[in-house]
Amino acid sequence: MDYESLIRSIPDWPKAGVVFKDITPVVGNPEALRASVSELADHFKDYGVTKVIGAEARGFIFGAPVACKLKAGFVPSRKPGKLPWKTISVTYDLEYGTDTLQIHQDAVGPDDVVLIVDDLMATGGTAYADALLAKKAGAKIAGFGFLMELDSLHGREKLTEEGLGEYEVFSLVHVTDGGEEG
Amino acid sequence: MDYESLIRSIPDWPKAGVVFKDITPVVGNPEALRASVSELADHFKDYGVTKVIGAEARGFIFGAPVACKLKAGFVPSRKPGKLPWKTISVTYDLEYGTDTLQIHQDAVGPDDVVLIVDDLMATGGTAYADALLAKKAGAKIAGFGFLMELDSLHGREKLTEEGLGEYEVFSLVHVTDGGEEG
Repeated sequence: MDYESLIRSIPDWPKAGVVFKDITPVVGNPEALRASVSELADHFKDYGVTKVIGAEARGFIFGAPVACKLKAGFVPSRKPGKLPWKTISVTYDLEYGTDTLQIHQDAVGPDDVVLIVDDLMATGGTAYADALLAKKAGAKIAGFGFLMELDSLHGREKLTEEGLGEYEVFSLVHVTDGGEEG
Repeated sequence: MDYESLIRSIPDWPKAGVVFKDITPVVGNPEALRASVSELADHFKDYGVTKVIGAEARGFIFGAPVACKLKAGFVPSRKPGKLPWKTISVTYDLEYGTDTLQIHQDAVGPDDVVLIVDDLMATGGTAYADALLAKKAGAKIAGFGFLMELDSLHGREKLTEEGLGEYEVFSLVHVTDGGEEG
């Protein structure tokens, strides 16, 4: 499916010089929503995925339906102060600054195989943090699935850097002109 | 399915006197996630739903998979400053204070039939705002679907109050002891 024609480029947002890739027309299109979720789930259907982690907030939009499709549970990773119970945390680098993500302590465990899903991989910081959260919880990692990857920011290299391991990274769309946090 | 046994009650969160209902164990459970999404979608399968609106951020977790299941598009409603393109806005009352939600101007139109989905209905303020956004965009409303409804806060009455109309309100779990914004 031609997802790229549905992605809207917004110049100078959220700040000057950044071309934001707006995925709301993709998820607003019934066929594109279903096709993208199916393609992401199908790619990882033989990995034994038990949990899908998606980062606040747009990661929920793809993560939850991919989890449904894989017959896995969905685990929201959230900014500090958002999850009400006991959490584990990871602080990570963004394209501009740092941020912290948390999951509940009982959300993922040593018996889990985790797929990390997000709408977009830019620098890979968010996905890397999700993977570290899964590792901290003792889980195995199946890989990473994205609607869109901003190739020029080399997030893929970050996700295979020393200490994390070699994992499958799968993106439905590769974009060369965008820049954004995450 | 017994969703209620999976919902975790957190006393005094986010503030003293509030019993927060944590739905992360429901979505983290593969069977409960799939069953709840299926039940919500099945209930509205004959309403001709073309778009599902879900409010930031937990509304995305149920809204996106319900949209997939109904072969509808998903429309995120978000806090100000989060959507990158032209928006329409509604300001609404919470249990404690007010808030504003926005959708993109082209997300919903006069040909759409909108289902509003969220994890939780408390006072009904968030769902009411989502409905007003759909109306402002000229769409028809199919109804409201929630995992959980806090009956003691009478949100259901707010959703049928004068000016909005009579719509189907469907919740999988009814809770009497919780209190929370939204």
